[in-house]
Amino acid sequence: MATLKTWVSVPENSDFSIYNLPFGIFSLKNDEPRAGMAIGDQILDLAAISDLGLLEVSAAYFRQKTLNDFIALGKKITNKVRLDIQGLLVSEKSPLRNHPEVFLFQKDATMHLPVHVGDYTDFYSSIEHATNVGKMFRDPENALLPNWRHIPVGYHGRASSIVVSGTNIHRPMGQVKPNTEELPSFKPSKNLDFELEMGFIVGKSTELGERISTKNAAEHIFGLVLFNDWSARDIQKWEYVPLGPFLGKNFASSMSPWIVTLEALEPFKVQGPEQQPEVLSYLKYKGKKNYDIQLEVGMSTQTSDETVISKSNFKYMYWNMMQQLAHHTVNGCNVNVGDVMASGTISGKVESSYGSLLEISWGGKKPFKLKDGSDRTFIEDYDSITIRGFAEKDGKRVGFGEVSGTIVPSK
Amino acid sequence: MATLKTWVSVPENSDFSIYNLPFGIFSLKNDEPRAGMAIGDQILDLAAISDLGLLEVSAAYFRQKTLNDFIALGKKITNKVRLDIQGLLVSEKSPLRNHPEVFLFQKDATMHLPVHVGDYTDFYSSIEHATNVGKMFRDPENALLPNWRHIPVGYHGRASSIVVSGTNIHRPMGQVKPNTEELPSFKPSKNLDFELEMGFIVGKSTELGERISTKNAAEHIFGLVLFNDWSARDIQKWEYVPLGPFLGKNFASSMSPWIVTLEALEPFKVQGPEQQPEVLSYLKYKGKKNYDIQLEVGMSTQTSDETVISKSNFKYMYWNMMQQLAHHTVNGCNVNVGDVMASGTISGKVESSYGSLLEISWGGKKPFKLKDGSDRTFIEDYDSITIRGFAEKDGKRVGFGEVSGTIVPSK
Repeated sequence: MATLKTWVSVPENSDFSIYNLPFGIFSLKNDEPRAGMAIGDQILDLAAISDLGLLEVSAAYFRQKTLNDFIALGKKITNKVRLDIQGLLVSEKSPLRNHPEVFLFQKDATMHLPVHVGDYTDFYSSIEHATNVGKMFRDPENALLPNWRHIPVGYHGRASSIVVSGTNIHRPMGQVKPNTEELPSFKPSKNLDFELEMGFIVGKSTELGERISTKNAAEHIFGLVLFNDWSARDIQKWEYVPLGPFLGKNFASSMSPWIVTLEALEPFKVQGPEQQPEVLSYLKYKGKKNYDIQLEVGMSTQTSDETVISKSNFKYMYWNMMQQLAHHTVNGCNVNVGDVMASGTISGKVESSYGSLLEISWGGKKPFKLKDGSDRTFIEDYDSITIRGFAEKDGKRVGFGEVSGTIVPSK
Repeated sequence: MATLKTWVSVPENSDFSIYNLPFGIFSLKNDEPRAGMAIGDQILDLAAISDLGLLEVSAAYFRQKTLNDFIALGKKITNKVRLDIQGLLVSEKSPLRNHPEVFLFQKDATMHLPVHVGDYTDFYSSIEHATNVGKMFRDPENALLPNWRHIPVGYHGRASSIVVSGTNIHRPMGQVKPNTEELPSFKPSKNLDFELEMGFIVGKSTELGERISTKNAAEHIFGLVLFNDWSARDIQKWEYVPLGPFLGKNFASSMSPWIVTLEALEPFKVQGPEQQPEVLSYLKYKGKKNYDIQLEVGMSTQTSDETVISKSNFKYMYWNMMQQLAHHTVNGCNVNVGDVMASGTISGKVESSYGSLLEISWGGKKPFKLKDGSDRTFIEDYDSITIRGFAEKDGKRVGFGEVSGTIVPSK
């Protein structure tokens, strides 16, 4: 990775370095949402840069409230836009130096969902998470179900309730039935949880009947975001047999606003865990397909400043994104630009790397301490959860910013 | 129901009587898709009628490739359009009598998906079907899981792969693991099945956090379609624990092209089955919320003409649509105009009313006969499945036409 220097002022340790340049949708007061690119603590107004004649893509693609049409132009074009802007931010003679009006401050902007999500799929690809959940929900001796090492298990989630970072989440009401009760009752969820996940945004559509191979999958992945798959464990536990999670999940999922392109993450590729037994041939892959992205979860409450309650890494995933996409389409299921496919909870081997409160508090049996000395098992009203993530190598940092959300009481 | 007479020629026993007037999207050769209404074997070109100044809705709403924007105008307006047209088709002095160009023949038109489907949910609301599946997939002694009589169990399906009636379906490939094998293998599904379902189209959106009561649910239901939730049982069986069906379902679901409005079905309301034990209060309802809609499934093969293999009725549903919608939103999950919520397989008590081959052939153990004397257990290549449905009372018929599909070999 060549070293690049930009004439733009970028704070030290910024997630949005010259190596990153993620895409998002922002608005200023009284303005319509439009496309932007993050650099340091600023946003580049892509439509304004296009209006200057500095990009090969018409400003009309950037004056939209989602990135779908831009992404659908294809990687050849979207990568060129990103690299052209990188060039403009590096060149000392850049015409952008005479156009300060294309730079806006992130603190003045409201961020929106970057894409319209047609379909949302959630995988279950961390072996540590699947094992932990299996131990608690099912049989401690046979925690991992027989299909798990053969299939990147996934299920369809609700696209309509995906919200952008910063959106308050109402505690869901629902049916719960503790083991001690004979009949279910209707009440606010008591075991409200987060799930530390990452999601990828589909960048190239397929037709019904078409398959994506692990080899070609990268062409279909535009970029990644941080993802919090809020989960009401008590609702989930009662409802999920036999057809899977439903109301325990679909009240909300939160997404970080900046899509970090797969190309920006290229330098951070690493080998994934060994897969045993050998997978079927349509799931085999060559080369490094995992990504070394450091993740952390912070929890703050009405009484306590933020406490970091988990440190994990995207590289732990047993099943990688290429395998997920190959599996999802192996039966001919079609995908569309803007679809979101989330990883499932990303847990590591040690307790400090568990990606959900279900695991951290072991089903509520082991309360943990926050900074002010108070105890928690699950999320209480007005608690906030913030997920952060970044990759770093040779002093070069490519990060995601954060996805945060505060739980407010049931309506 | 007052008797109405139209001056339009409507074949005897047509599903598309003057009492029905369903909405759909059609195109003629070289034309863009646009909105139409079925009457007999003809289609009314709604944009053309609006252009004549005979409707209160601008033709721009009808010159679109989906009905979403029209439906979003709200029932007050969409019902008026339907009733205004009914009046125009009944009045002897109708200005439409001088405009034969607004009538097109269905045989000349291609039908399209009537709505853009944002999210698709599939319920599991027939107690007979859930019991039959439970007996085969799980424990014959405890076929119905403990939550089933308390929750209208449902799961999220794939919106992208919903196709209109008449679309060929490629047999899906996938992972299967028969009990006799130690390891899974990758092959074309052998146990390919249909599911006889109906689906409703959401007609009024909600915000995240909002709930729909059983009392207000009808306001949020624009109308109904026939639905075939194609299912690969061998793929489903291996993959579905613990997160539910995924690739066993998402290769395709087929939908009938004409949306029959809830208002057209009003005369066919009936009382549903008694629910025991008593449901939680958010699921209680008053009045008749089931619909007497006669359903049948025909199967034809390369050697055999169509054989009717099932006769069922939508009135058998244990959980009604109002309860499904109340449950789906009780946690604040938002719904959007165009969302599809399907019933789940509609089986009755007797074998001849089972709504899937899984049940009809009892997991493949009991082959059934087709007209030409040949045997079937599951669907073979080039077999076609056609689902039909209609309501009838006092000689007045409101029907759905059909949803059909032919299975072609794996790609």
